[in-house]
Parts: sequence; structure tokens; C-alpha cells
Amino acid sequence: MHERKMPATLRFMLAARRSELLGLEDLAQTCELVTRISQLVHALQKERGYSNLYLSGNAPHQRLQLDNLSQTAQMLERQVREDLERIEPDNLGSADKTRLFTRIAYALHSLDELPALRRKIREHRTSMQDATATLVRLIGGLLAVVFEAADTAVDPAITRSLVALFNFMQGKELAGQERALGVAGFASGYFTAEMLERLEHLLESQERSFETCSRFASPAALSLWHDLCASDSNAQACRLRDIARRTRAEARVDPQLGELWFELHTARIDAMKSVETCLEQDLLQRCQQSMQRIRSDLHSHRRLLDGLSDMHAAAEQAKLFSVHSSDLDSSPQEGMSATLARSTLDLLQSQTQRLQGMHDELRDARQALEERKQVERAKQLLIKQQGYSESAAYAWLRQSAMNQGLRLEEVANRLLALDIEPARPWQKH
Amino acid sequence: MHERKMPATLRFMLAARRSELLGLEDLAQTCELVTRISQLVHALQKERGYSNLYLSGNAPHQRLQLDNLSQTAQMLERQVREDLERIEPDNLGSADKTRLFTRIAYALHSLDELPALRRKIREHRTSMQDATATLVRLIGGLLAVVFEAADTAVDPAITRSLVALFNFMQGKELAGQERALGVAGFASGYFTAEMLERLEHLLESQERSFETCSRFASPAALSLWHDLCASDSNAQACRLRDIARRTRAEARVDPQLGELWFELHTARIDAMKSVETCLEQDLLQRCQQSMQRIRSDLHSHRRLLDGLSDMHAAAEQAKLFSVHSSDLDSSPQEGMSATLARSTLDLLQSQTQRLQGMHDELRDARQALEERKQVERAKQLLIKQQGYSESAAYAWLRQSAMNQGLRLEEVANRLLALDIEPARPWQKH
Repeated sequence: MHERKMPATLRFMLAARRSELLGLEDLAQTCELVTRISQLVHALQKERGYSNLYLSGNAPHQRLQLDNLSQTAQMLERQVREDLERIEPDNLGSADKTRLFTRIAYALHSLDELPALRRKIREHRTSMQDATATLVRLIGGLLAVVFEAADTAVDPAITRSLVALFNFMQGKELAGQERALGVAGFASGYFTAEMLERLEHLLESQERSFETCSRFASPAALSLWHDLCASDSNAQACRLRDIARRTRAEARVDPQLGELWFELHTARIDAMKSVETCLEQDLLQRCQQSMQRIRSDLHSHRRLLDGLSDMHAAAEQAKLFSVHSSDLDSSPQEGMSATLARSTLDLLQSQTQRLQGMHDELRDARQALEERKQVERAKQLLIKQQGYSESAAYAWLRQSAMNQGLRLEEVANRLLALDIEPARPWQKH
Repeated sequence: MHERKMPATLRFMLAARRSELLGLEDLAQTCELVTRISQLVHALQKERGYSNLYLSGNAPHQRLQLDNLSQTAQMLERQVREDLERIEPDNLGSADKTRLFTRIAYALHSLDELPALRRKIREHRTSMQDATATLVRLIGGLLAVVFEAADTAVDPAITRSLVALFNFMQGKELAGQERALGVAGFASGYFTAEMLERLEHLLESQERSFETCSRFASPAALSLWHDLCASDSNAQACRLRDIARRTRAEARVDPQLGELWFELHTARIDAMKSVETCLEQDLLQRCQQSMQRIRSDLHSHRRLLDGLSDMHAAAEQAKLFSVHSSDLDSSPQEGMSATLARSTLDLLQSQTQRLQGMHDELRDARQALEERKQVERAKQLLIKQQGYSESAAYAWLRQSAMNQGLRLEEVANRLLALDIEPARPWQKH
């Protein structure tokens, strides 16, 4: 039966399903972009690590390796840009893209800085700190795209996968920053108090990210993650952390430890990459599954509605021949039409229930993102209003949470809700 | 400058703005539908009132008036259906329509029952209770469309207007149900305990709806509402409520009071209609304002980006002629390009901040909807699992909230989170 002739009720039911499929196709495209971004981020993290080694001046022979890494990152960047060309901003698809596109624009803008940065690194015209800061910001911009993809996804299973992947990427990025911090610390023979505070902040934030990831990751990814945590190289990396913690200006260590630190943390991050790959595969698989399900739903729905529609038409036809129908005991709404109405209603109710279930599941996963965002914003507020460092801001939030017996997210929410100068539960050092 | 030649960053910034405008155009169309639905709901409420009078057998002379009201409702229904034709489910626009379309399908399905119901009423083949129940469900389906429109709106100002309108419509619908209940009560000479319980439930729910509406309504609408509350006819309606509360099987009143009740409550509901009209106008005005703002933003944004784009092209051009640029002290990223990068970044940051602000505002308004939905779902759970009536379920929630010193929404949330058989803080009567 031709769709335009369907009763309006059935047409809207079908359109609802079609809207769902369109949204999902759109989301699947975004998810592919996300996995490419994840690969680019990994390459940039590697490049950042070797850039620091190169800049620290302890390994000038690594210029060739650095060039290779830059080339890999450039190739992956091209792939991301090609994906973006396909996303084609003119063709807006079915979802509101305002936030996602703004994040993408920001990420692209940061990527444009890369060629100049690479030149400066090779010409030793930038410090390790500045190069790291630029790349941290750039990777942060790419992570924000993944965050936004997760926050605007409409399918609960896919959203959960995206939340797991985002949090893992975030944790791995913090691990990368920890590696850079360690290289800098060991290179100068000891860690300043500020560096140690930052180290603790990076460790705790990693823990929170991986903990959130674990709540949403697949069993396969979780099992890989547990293997990593129980590995020897992870244990050795922990021991080196303890050494770092005991250094002082008066208690320096051999700067050569920096190379060992770098190697161990590189092994740790490379092992993380295999978890990340598993999470990426989970994500793409979920996309496939959801699309298949919705396509086959749409197909059977369409058949069902066509059937109902034909019966509707037949019932209308029947009315033409029973001119006295209104005199009869049963009105057209009763009898056959009533059966039709009942079937339509059943379909509608199961659709409504399914949507409500999806809405509830979505809420749980988005909650995890919202909480992360609130903690970030609370940190930014403290940095801006109190002049705290990022680590000090985080430490303030953690301390307030402990003092008040609240979760970190609750303290962040209260702080943001007040939006006033916070009392200082402890002195900044 | 042609858009395809713009740097990708600027293209995505522009696309973000365009996505915003598309979303808004789409929303404006939904808002027009909402105002039509609001008018249809009003007509159906009137028709329901006169249907009850007609069915109560006390005013057979009102058949003509009932027919007039049915015709008005039919005309408004046709307009809603025409609006829906324009919304054109095949042309999905820019937002995810799954939930909205499912609600629309449900509303249309209920509207299909109207002709048969009208016939039954005229032939006295239905009871007042059954006719009322059908129309309550039908109007509930239309209100659900307005709820969904509010819940999926992307503009904070428009969302606030929609939340205000939805809550007002909900309150007015409860006032309509109160009128019907009173007609039935006075017609039989007294109110049973169950009817009185339902009366209190309707009163409290009205209060909650109007209170939520007040938080989001414009000053103009609020002032109209306060006038209504302070009016003589409202005071008289209150006094009749007190009389209703004192009736018992052994203490009957003159059934003629039913006509007075009907008149007073009709005056009250008609006065509500003027508040509702004001809220509708606010809504449409907000849509116009937001669209104008976004269009002019898009226009100036586009000019700005064109300017940046031209400068970009010029900078690229300049590079061609300075083959030694990499030998110079400043890399292309510095100097003129750096200024460009800075301007782009400023634009991006202001866009990001604006979006974050919108997100926060949206959250507040949506919170009000989410809470209403949770209370509704908790009520449904109690009705299903405990066999409570709607009024008893509401009373249970209210009592639990009082006992535990919590807000109604908090009790509802806890009940739904447990999803287990609730303890009974009081005995059902």
C-alpha cells in the first residue's frame, strides 16, 4: 500500500521508526569518526612522548624515530579530516549538530597548529613544558569531540560504549601526561613539590576515569584491563613512582632513570592501546547490532502497518456499503475496526515502553558524563577565581568532599550552584 | 568566498550555526502545532463538559449547544491534522523525532475514536463516567505531545515557554476534570468518599501544575493568573467546593447546585483560557525572537568567517612568495596567521560558552518536566502493583513525602529506583 494513503496514525508510527534509523545511521558515522580520533590521539601521545625525549636533549639520535611518529600522526590526521569531509557539514542529517560541530571546529583549529609546533620542536625553539602544554590542549580538543559524541548519542548501548571509550581515552591521556611529567622530573634529577602534587592529581584522575570506564565497558575489555593492572611492567612502573615521590632537591636520583620510566610507561600505555582497540571494536559492533535491529524492526513494523492499513481501507470500504451503520447496535469503531484500533494501540504502547526504557538507560550513562563535566567546571572555577593550579583545585574538591562526607561530584555541583567564592578548607601550598 | 574553499575549521563553525537555525525552524513548527493542540484541547474540554450535562439528563435542551461545540472541536481537529500534514513525517528535519512522532501517533489514534464517542453520547449509549474517561485519555494523549515538544526543544527560552504552557494546560485539564466530577457529584445529590478523595487529588495536582507554570511563565501571563485567583467567581467556586465536601449519603443537597457549579467552573476555565492564550502568544513570540537572533547571528558570523577565510587565503598566498619562511625567525603560525588563529579561537570560545550557558538553562527547565514524569510513573507503579486508585496513589506519595521530610519528586525517585513493593505508610480506604 502506498504510504501517503496510510492513515495518519500509522504514518507517524512509521516515521518515528524511520527517524530512529536515521539518527542511528548518523550516530554510526560519528562513531567511526570517534575510532579514527582515538587512533590519532594515540599517535599524538606517542609523538608527544618522543618529542619530550628529543627536547630533553638526552636522545638526539631519536630524531629519526620522532620523524616516523610525526608521519604516522600526519597520516591519521589526514584520515580524520577525510572522515570529516564525509560528515559534510552542509548535509546536516537527523540530529542537532551544533555542539558536535563546534567541538570539531575547535579540534581542527588546534590541529592547524601542529606543523608549526613540529618545526619548533625540531629546531629546539620550544621548551618541553610548552610543547607538552600545546599537545595536551590539542588532545583535549579531540577528546572533547568524543565526549560530545557520547553526550548526544541516542542509543543506550552505543552511548554506554562511547562513555566507556571516552573515559578510557581520558585515563590513557592522563597516563601519557604522567609519563611526560616523569620524564621531566627525572631529567632534572628530582621532582618539585608542585610536580609531586600534579603526579598525585594525575594518578587519582586516572583512577576515576578507569573506574567510570569499568562501569560501562564490555567483559572482554574489562578482562584485558585487569590483565594489564596485574602485569609485571605495571608493578615496576608503580615502584618507579615511589622512587619519584622520595626525590628532593637534596635527594636527587640518576637522570638515567628517566629512560627506564619512559620505557615502562610506554609499555603501560601500549598495553592500554590494546584495551582501547577492544573498546573501539565493541563500539563499532554495537553500532552494527543496533542498526541491524532497527532495520529489521522497521521492516517488520512496515509490514505490520501495511497490514493494518489494508484492513483499515477494507473497513472504510465496508462502511460505504452499510449506509445504516449508525443505526446498528455497533458503531464502526466497534467490531472489526475495534480490533484494528486495539492492534494499533498495542504497537503504540510497546513502542512507548521501549522508548521510555531507552530514555532511562540513556540517563544513567549520560549521568556519568554530566558528573565529569561538573567536576571539570568546578576545577576551572577554582583556577579562575582562586588562582589555584589544576592539581590544587582538584585537591581542594577532594578535601571538601572528604570533610563533608560527600561525593566529589556533589561538592562540584554545590560549588557551581553557589558560584561564589568558596571558603578555603585548607591552605594552598 | 565559496564555502567549499573555506578552511575546515570555519566550515564547521558555520555548519554549527546552521544546524542551530535548522533545529530552531523545526522547533518553531512544533510550537505552532502546540498552540493548535492547546486550542483543540480547550474545545474538547468544553465539549466534555456539555456532554456530561447532556448525559446527566438534566439539560436535554442543550443538544444544540453540544452540536455547536462538537463542530468547533472538529474544525480545530482538522487544523491540527493539517498542521501535521505540513510537519510531513517523510521530511524528518533536523532533530530526532522518534518520541514526538510516537506521541503524535498515539494522539491521532485517540482522535479517531471521537466520531463513535460523539454518536454514543447523543444516543445515550454511554455513561457520563465512560465518556469522561475516554475524553480524559484523549486529552492526555494531546498533552503528551506538548510534553514531548517541551522535552525535546533545544532553545532554553522556548523550552521555558513550553514548560509553562504544558503545566498550565495540565492544570486547566485537571480543573476540567474537577468540573466533571462536581457535575456528577451534585447530580447524584452527594459526593462519595472516593469522589471526595479524587476531588482533593485534583485540587492538589492543579496547585502543583500552576506552581510549576508560575516558575516559567512571563510576567504578563502571571499577572493574568493572579487576577483570576483573586476573582469573585473563583471565590464562589471555592465555597461550592466546601459544600461538596460536607455532603454525605445522609446529607444530600439540591441537584440543581450542579448547574451553578458547572457555571462557576466554566467561568473559571474560560478565564484560564485567556491566561493560556497569553502563554501561547509568549511561546510564538519567543520562537520569532530566537529565530531572528540566530538568523542575524548566522549572517554576521558568516561575514566574519568570510573575512577570516579571505585573510587565510591571503596568508597562504604570502607563504608561496616567501619560500624561506621556515628559515625566518617566525613560522607561518606566528605573525599574521597567529592573529587569524586568535580571532578564530575567540569566536570558538564565545560559541562554546554560549552553548554551555544554553545547556545549563535547558537543564533547569527540563528538570521540571523530568520530575513531573517521575511522579506520574511512581503513581502508575502504585496503581499497577498495589491496585491503588490514582488518588490513593497520589495520597500515598504525599504522605510518604511528609513522613520522610522529602519532596514529592524525591519519594517518587526512590520508589522507582527500588522498583519493589512499597511499604504502606497508611491503610488504603
